[in-house]
Amino acid sequence: MRGITDKPREACGVFGIYAPDGEAAALTYMGLYALQHRGQESAGITVSDGEKLQLYKDEGLVPEVFSEEILEGLPGFLAIGHVHYPTWGNTGYLNAQPLLVHSRKGSLALAHNGNLVNAAALRAQLEEQGAVFQTAVDAEVIASLLARNDREGIVAALVDCMQVFRGSYALVLLTRDRLIGARDPHGLRPLSLGTLPGGGYVLTSETCALDTIGASFLRDVEPGEVVVVEGGQLHSLQGTKPLGRALCAFEFIYFARPDSVIDGMNVHLARNRAGERLAQEHPVEADLVIAVPDSGTSAAIGYARAAGIPFGEGMIKNRYVGRTFISPGRKARERRVQLKLNPISTVVKGKRVVVVDDSIVRGTTSHRIVKLLRKAGAQEVHVRVSSPPVVSPCYFGISTPAYEELVGAQNRVAAIEQRIGADSLGFLSLEGLVESIGMGEENLCLGCFTGRYPVTVDNGQLTMDN
Amino acid sequence: MRGITDKPREACGVFGIYAPDGEAAALTYMGLYALQHRGQESAGITVSDGEKLQLYKDEGLVPEVFSEEILEGLPGFLAIGHVHYPTWGNTGYLNAQPLLVHSRKGSLALAHNGNLVNAAALRAQLEEQGAVFQTAVDAEVIASLLARNDREGIVAALVDCMQVFRGSYALVLLTRDRLIGARDPHGLRPLSLGTLPGGGYVLTSETCALDTIGASFLRDVEPGEVVVVEGGQLHSLQGTKPLGRALCAFEFIYFARPDSVIDGMNVHLARNRAGERLAQEHPVEADLVIAVPDSGTSAAIGYARAAGIPFGEGMIKNRYVGRTFISPGRKARERRVQLKLNPISTVVKGKRVVVVDDSIVRGTTSHRIVKLLRKAGAQEVHVRVSSPPVVSPCYFGISTPAYEELVGAQNRVAAIEQRIGADSLGFLSLEGLVESIGMGEENLCLGCFTGRYPVTVDNGQLTMDN
Amino acid sequence: MRGITDKPREACGVFGIYAPDGEAAALTYMGLYALQHRGQESAGITVSDGEKLQLYKDEGLVPEVFSEEILEGLPGFLAIGHVHYPTWGNTGYLNAQPLLVHSRKGSLALAHNGNLVNAAALRAQLEEQGAVFQTAVDAEVIASLLARNDREGIVAALVDCMQVFRGSYALVLLTRDRLIGARDPHGLRPLSLGTLPGGGYVLTSETCALDTIGASFLRDVEPGEVVVVEGGQLHSLQGTKPLGRALCAFEFIYFARPDSVIDGMNVHLARNRAGERLAQEHPVEADLVIAVPDSGTSAAIGYARAAGIPFGEGMIKNRYVGRTFISPGRKARERRVQLKLNPISTVVKGKRVVVVDDSIVRGTTSHRIVKLLRKAGAQEVHVRVSSPPVVSPCYFGISTPAYEELVGAQNRVAAIEQRIGADSLGFLSLEGLVESIGMGEENLCLGCFTGRYPVTVDNGQLTMDN
Amino acid sequence: MRGITDKPREACGVFGIYAPDGEAAALTYMGLYALQHRGQESAGITVSDGEKLQLYKDEGLVPEVFSEEILEGLPGFLAIGHVHYPTWGNTGYLNAQPLLVHSRKGSLALAHNGNLVNAAALRAQLEEQGAVFQTAVDAEVIASLLARNDREGIVAALVDCMQVFRGSYALVLLTRDRLIGARDPHGLRPLSLGTLPGGGYVLTSETCALDTIGASFLRDVEPGEVVVVEGGQLHSLQGTKPLGRALCAFEFIYFARPDSVIDGMNVHLARNRAGERLAQEHPVEADLVIAVPDSGTSAAIGYARAAGIPFGEGMIKNRYVGRTFISPGRKARERRVQLKLNPISTVVKGKRVVVVDDSIVRGTTSHRIVKLLRKAGAQEVHVRVSSPPVVSPCYFGISTPAYEELVGAQNRVAAIEQRIGADSLGFLSLEGLVESIGMGEENLCLGCFTGRYPVTVDNGQLTMDN
Repeated sequence: MRGITDKPREACGVFGIYAPDGEAAALTYMGLYALQHRGQESAGITVSDGEKLQLYKDEGLVPEVFSEEILEGLPGFLAIGHVHYPTWGNTGYLNAQPLLVHSRKGSLALAHNGNLVNAAALRAQLEEQGAVFQTAVDAEVIASLLARNDREGIVAALVDCMQVFRGSYALVLLTRDRLIGARDPHGLRPLSLGTLPGGGYVLTSETCALDTIGASFLRDVEPGEVVVVEGGQLHSLQGTKPLGRALCAFEFIYFARPDSVIDGMNVHLARNRAGERLAQEHPVEADLVIAVPDSGTSAAIGYARAAGIPFGEGMIKNRYVGRTFISPGRKARERRVQLKLNPISTVVKGKRVVVVDDSIVRGTTSHRIVKLLRKAGAQEVHVRVSSPPVVSPCYFGISTPAYEELVGAQNRVAAIEQRIGADSLGFLSLEGLVESIGMGEENLCLGCFTGRYPVTVDNGQLTMDN
Repeated sequence: MRGITDKPREACGVFGIYAPDGEAAALTYMGLYALQHRGQESAGITVSDGEKLQLYKDEGLVPEVFSEEILEGLPGFLAIGHVHYPTWGNTGYLNAQPLLVHSRKGSLALAHNGNLVNAAALRAQLEEQGAVFQTAVDAEVIASLLARNDREGIVAALVDCMQVFRGSYALVLLTRDRLIGARDPHGLRPLSLGTLPGGGYVLTSETCALDTIGASFLRDVEPGEVVVVEGGQLHSLQGTKPLGRALCAFEFIYFARPDSVIDGMNVHLARNRAGERLAQEHPVEADLVIAVPDSGTSAAIGYARAAGIPFGEGMIKNRYVGRTFISPGRKARERRVQLKLNPISTVVKGKRVVVVDDSIVRGTTSHRIVKLLRKAGAQEVHVRVSSPPVVSPCYFGISTPAYEELVGAQNRVAAIEQRIGADSLGFLSLEGLVESIGMGEENLCLGCFTGRYPVTVDNGQLTMDN
Repeated sequence: MRGITDKPREACGVFGIYAPDGEAAALTYMGLYALQHRGQESAGITVSDGEKLQLYKDEGLVPEVFSEEILEGLPGFLAIGHVHYPTWGNTGYLNAQPLLVHSRKGSLALAHNGNLVNAAALRAQLEEQGAVFQTAVDAEVIASLLARNDREGIVAALVDCMQVFRGSYALVLLTRDRLIGARDPHGLRPLSLGTLPGGGYVLTSETCALDTIGASFLRDVEPGEVVVVEGGQLHSLQGTKPLGRALCAFEFIYFARPDSVIDGMNVHLARNRAGERLAQEHPVEADLVIAVPDSGTSAAIGYARAAGIPFGEGMIKNRYVGRTFISPGRKARERRVQLKLNPISTVVKGKRVVVVDDSIVRGTTSHRIVKLLRKAGAQEVHVRVSSPPVVSPCYFGISTPAYEELVGAQNRVAAIEQRIGADSLGFLSLEGLVESIGMGEENLCLGCFTGRYPVTVDNGQLTMDN
Repeated sequence: MRGITDKPREACGVFGIYAPDGEAAALTYMGLYALQHRGQESAGITVSDGEKLQLYKDEGLVPEVFSEEILEGLPGFLAIGHVHYPTWGNTGYLNAQPLLVHSRKGSLALAHNGNLVNAAALRAQLEEQGAVFQTAVDAEVIASLLARNDREGIVAALVDCMQVFRGSYALVLLTRDRLIGARDPHGLRPLSLGTLPGGGYVLTSETCALDTIGASFLRDVEPGEVVVVEGGQLHSLQGTKPLGRALCAFEFIYFARPDSVIDGMNVHLARNRAGERLAQEHPVEADLVIAVPDSGTSAAIGYARAAGIPFGEGMIKNRYVGRTFISPGRKARERRVQLKLNPISTVVKGKRVVVVDDSIVRGTTSHRIVKLLRKAGAQEVHVRVSSPPVVSPCYFGISTPAYEELVGAQNRVAAIEQRIGADSLGFLSLEGLVESIGMGEENLCLGCFTGRYPVTVDNGQLTMDN
């Protein structure tokens, strides 16, 4: 069902660990498991035993890529890991991360979440100096810049390079004896720091991975900060001047797992509040509030509570859809959304239903959901979306459709309402979203809703893929 | 995570179709997709084009077993399909269904959900007459009995055989030109009948598969009934005298998808009512009601509504857990449940929490959940279970642990409460369960809760595996 | 290259062992490796540890099917094994052997090489009595007959059944505590007996498997004989009256490995003598004798020696061809034989070349070889075949093309000569073949060369597959 | 059986084609098939359709890596391909070739056979300038040097770089619109040029690949020559001054296919003559000459002819050994060589046997062969080797054991004779080898037999791999 999703896709998740007890690979495996929702196409782990770095990566889900035997073949007390978004066929392997490179700075592994908006320019500049590239990922550009830097040591080189990076990055690096984390000066992508009960440090895109491995949350890596774990100690330095926090709002709307806390804000609560606020902004007389599962559930519960309308499970999601799907037969093709979602007729029949979704990007799925609910007997279908219309592409690590496919960019709300066939349609306002998240507009990147980005971007040049 | 599940396991799901437009295999594929929750270990489809039967089956999930190419290689307008529960390694192939056999009655494919309690006796009797068996499945015993029967025609033979079958069966059969369905005289396992929009008939374990392929529900197959689709017509006959309906109550508690309707009762509503009733039977002063996702959600919503306590998402389930899991490392092994479930600390912290689960079989997972919630800051943890304690094994197609592992069989409620470490524990009463389902006690099999079965069984002899 | 072979295909190879040291599976694995040339499509092993039988089989070559882990999971001191010829797709698994069945005679595994000419009749008769069949192999018919037999014990039943079997069989059977071998009354297919150095017995289609596992040749199983290994002892009985030995001549011509000895005759020497005799029957003025590698080499060396013409390597065979071949591109398809065979131009250029092949079935490859040799500069190409023309199909376990495709059945030698484009063509005479083998015409089955078979067959009814 | 081979291993094979009809990938596939003996661990093809380059490579044999579907997804009229020798596990993918890189010189694919003796120094120098490396292959060093070169155009840059390369290389390069071949100034590794019947050019490590695809041999690429195919035209330039031809003698002894012609000399004939010469140098009274199949056959035939002793097939090689072999069981492990080779007892029994092998590197297999022949009844076993003892490692692309494992480096002939248990042992003399090949000592690299290399090498620094 990957092909028909109507959601933006996260580029990836990163993880890093210093585990003095030596189970670095096993814990990274569990951490990547918890971050699996951020990238389902490839997974990789690089470990260091203090002497050498070893890498294993392949296409597939985390438990498909790694077996107990493979993990046992990756001994070490330092590790980084990565989960990645879709790429085609065999090429996938090369674009998978971590990237392990050898240069005059020694062996270095990198895992990157984000998008450097000046990657193409940096790449051209490096090529001009004789660099060769084998992949399409930013991590290779970063590796090349680090290797070429004249400063002694990888940390100093990283700090130097951060002055020329523009765009988003939550970066983890591994050398023979060091684990390093860095976050871009806007803090566009999340990166948190945790501690292991028996000593040791963890870097992760989301805090849910800390819970999974039994680690405790310490704090978030700050915008522009570099953290270094070496000799059992955690060091911090300001790699580059912070430029005004601009955390990606879509982490709260859709990407992050509800049990994660990002920059102090709980994802589930933000969604809950968005639902409550949505009820105030777009009230409607109705008998039942239901969610588009699973991402709409938190907001739907909030809507129901605020509106005083009962919340119910009106739609069931097939837990097994999503894997190696093939479209069988001519007629069958038309019924694809039904493989994934099915309304519970007894619940919605004769009812005026409010259906809450977290976001609408293309609008195609919304159209089908409304149709299914009507067929199941809903008397009225009111669509409520707990985020504003997406009107502009993302340049910082999210895969959105091209501009002309963005439903919000093309239509005013009334037109969308008609297109998806709902009795009414309401989007959460920008202010509503900002208040729900609770960080203040000045701390968020809202570019895809406003077209105003924290970094000046030249549309013609940039690509959105990682 | 297959190994650590604390739930009983459904034996399987069956599906059959007469699709005059010739897309029988593609529609069966979609139907099996919708029934995937009933069996994740193997899947198979047999088609007939009117001349010959072709079978394809293998271990794996439905989309792993079948590709577009394979489905295109299975042309025909009649098909049956099956999803199956775990078996070991290579043997799995042989025990997968449908079973395709050749006998003097011609070629015949069978798919069976249920358990014949006299299978061992029938098998011994057939062996005495010279039969050989290659698998461990009841379907092979049934095939052998049908082949040996002297009556002309497969339907007459089936009716004859139904007189000697004892136990549960929802059975679909396929010959060159006929699709046949049969249900045991107690109606222990579900079997529904649907129609295709352009003509054609469907047999399915659950109605959710009808929705998925765009078919309409016609009616349930009645206890003891045989339905035959031949020459485009649906025929019905009473294969054996109905013996008092005894539909498996666990279909409503855990197995069936909430969007299915079984023998007239909606599964979701039954769970909802069970939650409401549970609130009346076991009220508690609390701040929040949460569910053990996903199977406890319907009941939790009901509990919350009836108790007037807010419902919240207090626990997140990792959607990617469940596939080829391997246990990494020594310490990691202890943290396995955390891979699957994670409380949302912000939601439960400082709260008196009611956590609703649908059933407790072994009690091991409940113990871990209580521990996780306390660690996440819950002030009190009250476990509520929307079904009675399981005290007796199942002989009709459900895989339950051995008697000595059943938490309910060994402990009184107070002891269980202590064992799982909850502040309080409440099970739904038998009457409460019966009323929630709404069919009347006389129409349900409640054997696993009472030890009283609709069919006399000789414990020493029977095995529970399909 | 499987599809373009111009040779008949052997149905299979069987192996059985009593290894008191308990390495039965490992030794069977090695034995099957040595018999791999008799069947490349599936392989299987059944072991007994004295208590229960375990089976593992799958499609693929022996080392592809079995891993060290799988072999370690098959503990026991008794085992049988089987390698099988091509079958289509998924069905392959079911038709793979050994077949493991459970009946009133207990658990029994069977592996069969040969073809029962009355299999269809026996199958129909068994079906009339109520038997069901799941596969297309004779072994299932044999198992069914054994199970149905009233005699006490598997050996007595086997003897009874041998009275109704018509056709060829080299059969190995395994029960909980016994290894049994049986050979048809004509001895159509080979079956040899060996001993292990530290005690223990071996049954094998060919003696090369004895060498491979370090066993010693004891003797051949006699036509109609049954051998039983039980309690460490070897017993023999005459299962059925021998009917005049009729060993398949094609074992000497093409199937068997040159290092095997069958019924006292060395395969390599027989081929050597056939070449010598061929030189006498069809002499020609020439400069060089070359072989179609590898099966023509033994005969070519004999021809060269007898003719006093130098033997040379004139043609190279690509050792890697033969596996999962796919035909690339339009023009490339026409060059397929070149992937497999390439003349050495320097060797054949300007020479009058005798090219020796072991047999011609369809004639298509011979045509291409002549063309390649001419293109490589050969001045004359004289084809010599070390067996007579195949004029009639085989009913005893060899897969030959249908009658109308047999080059020998359709053309007189002159016509074949023209068709394949050779300067001259000579087939070994029947007497020549018989004398080369050295067993006497009365001891051989020469049906495919003469149309006279040791068993009366009804062409219309019989199938040649296994 | 890969692990127990006693032969040196060729590093790889390269292939390149300009096929105006557009079947470049399919023809490269066939070409790599013919070169499979030069590398069995990974295979890859890069194509260009004039606009962009596409790469597909993976671990496995050529027909395992490529399917018809994959080849169809590689449209273009220019292609290069590569087959590679063993590497471990997952890393294999990265070290597979062709290597596809992007630099200021555009996209470029490289496939390399040989070994740059100054690769480590060049790599260090490039790292000093900021280069990063992701693999261990020389091709990446070459790519980096090319990208960094200031000359306009890839050909000029290649010529520049050839001045700093030291060691062996047969190199094929592919850009969007050009196919380029280059050979080191000693011509250490072979590289031939052919033409397609309908127009088009081919580059290949061996001429056997020309025969396979129906191409004609044009000429060999000369030492230090660069050939460029562009716009349908073949251009040639002297990339670097030729330094005295030093073709690897082992190509004639073991690596190359007998049907190949290298620098004007036929491989089969060279082996034939080596056998004849060996008979003169080391005559012995004997009854039979046999070969260690397959690589000893050409020499054995020569020996037999010159000695006037009959040649016979005394040993059979299992054609199926060599793939995913696993060692089963304790005792079985000791019998591993028997899986691969089996003497024909009837042939060797009571005979004084001369067994001809092409080379002895470690001596372990020779020891086992002598033992097997004695056990099979040979009265005397005289080992003759058609090349001199290997006394020194190779630095130019052949994988030989470390110095201390080289049987020739450690023992005088008498000691080896005793070690392998032969009645007598004779190695071909260096002069004998040189005369058999027929190119003159001044045109060959004989370093592994003499320790004198065409390029000065610093043993401490160099690695022999690739």
